[in-house]
Amino acid sequence: MANREESGQNTELVSWLRSLNHPASRDSLYTDILPSLLNGIGEIAKALRGATNVSLVGSANAFGDEQLNVDVLAENIIRDTIAKCPTIFTASSEEDPIERPARSGEETPSPSTVSEQYTVAFDPLDGSSIIAPNWTVGTIIGIWDGVTALHQDPAEKQVASILGVYGPRTTAIVALRVPGTTDICFEVGLTGDGATRCEVVRPEVQLAQPPFKTRYFAPANLRAAAEDPQYMSLITRFVQEKYTLRYSGGLIPDVVHALVKGHGVYVSPVTGVSQAKLRRLYELCPVALVLECAGGQAIDPADGERILGRVVADCDERGGLVCGTASEVDTVKDALRKE
Amino acid sequence: MANREESGQNTELVSWLRSLNHPASRDSLYTDILPSLLNGIGEIAKALRGATNVSLVGSANAFGDEQLNVDVLAENIIRDTIAKCPTIFTASSEEDPIERPARSGEETPSPSTVSEQYTVAFDPLDGSSIIAPNWTVGTIIGIWDGVTALHQDPAEKQVASILGVYGPRTTAIVALRVPGTTDICFEVGLTGDGATRCEVVRPEVQLAQPPFKTRYFAPANLRAAAEDPQYMSLITRFVQEKYTLRYSGGLIPDVVHALVKGHGVYVSPVTGVSQAKLRRLYELCPVALVLECAGGQAIDPADGERILGRVVADCDERGGLVCGTASEVDTVKDALRKE
Repeated sequence: MANREESGQNTELVSWLRSLNHPASRDSLYTDILPSLLNGIGEIAKALRGATNVSLVGSANAFGDEQLNVDVLAENIIRDTIAKCPTIFTASSEEDPIERPARSGEETPSPSTVSEQYTVAFDPLDGSSIIAPNWTVGTIIGIWDGVTALHQDPAEKQVASILGVYGPRTTAIVALRVPGTTDICFEVGLTGDGATRCEVVRPEVQLAQPPFKTRYFAPANLRAAAEDPQYMSLITRFVQEKYTLRYSGGLIPDVVHALVKGHGVYVSPVTGVSQAKLRRLYELCPVALVLECAGGQAIDPADGERILGRVVADCDERGGLVCGTASEVDTVKDALRKE
Repeated sequence: MANREESGQNTELVSWLRSLNHPASRDSLYTDILPSLLNGIGEIAKALRGATNVSLVGSANAFGDEQLNVDVLAENIIRDTIAKCPTIFTASSEEDPIERPARSGEETPSPSTVSEQYTVAFDPLDGSSIIAPNWTVGTIIGIWDGVTALHQDPAEKQVASILGVYGPRTTAIVALRVPGTTDICFEVGLTGDGATRCEVVRPEVQLAQPPFKTRYFAPANLRAAAEDPQYMSLITRFVQEKYTLRYSGGLIPDVVHALVKGHGVYVSPVTGVSQAKLRRLYELCPVALVLECAGGQAIDPADGERILGRVVADCDERGGLVCGTASEVDTVKDALRKE
């Protein structure tokens, strides 16, 4: 596979991934797809660094969000990366939320010639509202077994996810839930002005066990507390119990904060007035896999069910999210329970 | 001056600064000090990008904070920059909070040979607690007339300040309050993997006038609301009035968010239990100059007085802060007023 050579700069990462002793039937996932997508994240980081004049490109994406020109850049980089991975058959993204072939017809190998088949669902640049003030933003990627992520069991079919983090450094959190192996979550650092160098900086990302030195909370969609007394009273309780507030408004930095600090709870409830905003396919499922592989929980606050416990039927499905330290998620679930 | 040539990569910036028609007596400030310090911020950005293994260096700074190795890197870069600017005579920093000569004795020119004399007070890397999760952090620099910042009138003697912002991009906000000129605040973008290129991306940074499309609040030290009913009731009011929460916990990203969005209020109150934490010399004064030059306000919540209205008597002085959109600052001042 040509792409393995192209991602040769990620030799160190590939060696490390090989040391995880993956099944031979997953060779392409471990030695081609993951290194290639991480390389793509490194490319996006470089593009963002040079984007001093971040401005609206004058087009709206399919969901009606304002689309920044850097969104287009990121989308194109991930699409190009995907096209070069022969075992990725289809892909869809928040910018183009329809599952399409990863390459134009004639370049797509016939499924019979390869043993692995994947589809990728991604949000190329999450956190558009905080791009202008130069706050940390991210890329979200879910990798699924098969040629579609729709009507599948997310807990079983989403085998990997990647959260790219663009801040003062470029980092990424990778989660793997491959049948026949143990769940794993690890953090890499991406450096290099030319070719991207990928270093495993934390081989095991796990949320901490109690007692917690500092407890963090990230209350998303806080305006919803104006209509929802349960949410308002939850916020008051966090304050009274001296939790530390960290809320950037970017899903990736907010979730990664908890993963790096070892504690945290992210709360994005849904109320009658404040509608669900997070896309299940491009945001909730990949984030939920990372949280579960790191020993945490990710649930839908509407019914308390596990995010990965319900199939995604449509690319545009949305929902709320409570995720982070398992015991905190339980507490929030109870606090927001509707009778 | 040798340094002007060294900062030749900042030609574009220097031309733009010259177009502001500064007094001839300030030539060094505009064409040497500002370009050199912005170049230093570009150097810090590069150092941070490569710091994939951010870890504790095992030493504490003079204030007892845990000191990350990247703090030391940033401190050294700014110190080296300062040493090369002949009209900077002294400097002190949060990491070494004593005003000392900018160079070893024999290299310091005699005051009589230069027409300008400055001292610099800086925080090399603000936001240590959010370095590990890869959130945006900053550098804060105040430039004062004379050889000491202590026992001077900050409103008159602090002639410039710079807020460096390390996120997906590298940006900086610069404020100038030079006697005989109009106050100005502008934003630059720093790019370049080798030499730093400095581009003026917004020649005039000004907070917006009402009506505001979106209103933002950043409640620092929120745990203080557990003891302070006035602060708790202010938070409740922000929620009821549907302000949008953005709070990273880094002073620079939080303040710059308001400057870029055109609206925002940052609230860091002081209570009996929650002591003042922000250093007046290294954090409050430079940030206050930027806010004032951008048409906003910066006050001490303890007495409602202007931050720049009181002399700094000691390098370690600390205080609270309310800053941002002028009308919002007035509202917060009234809400927190102690009878």
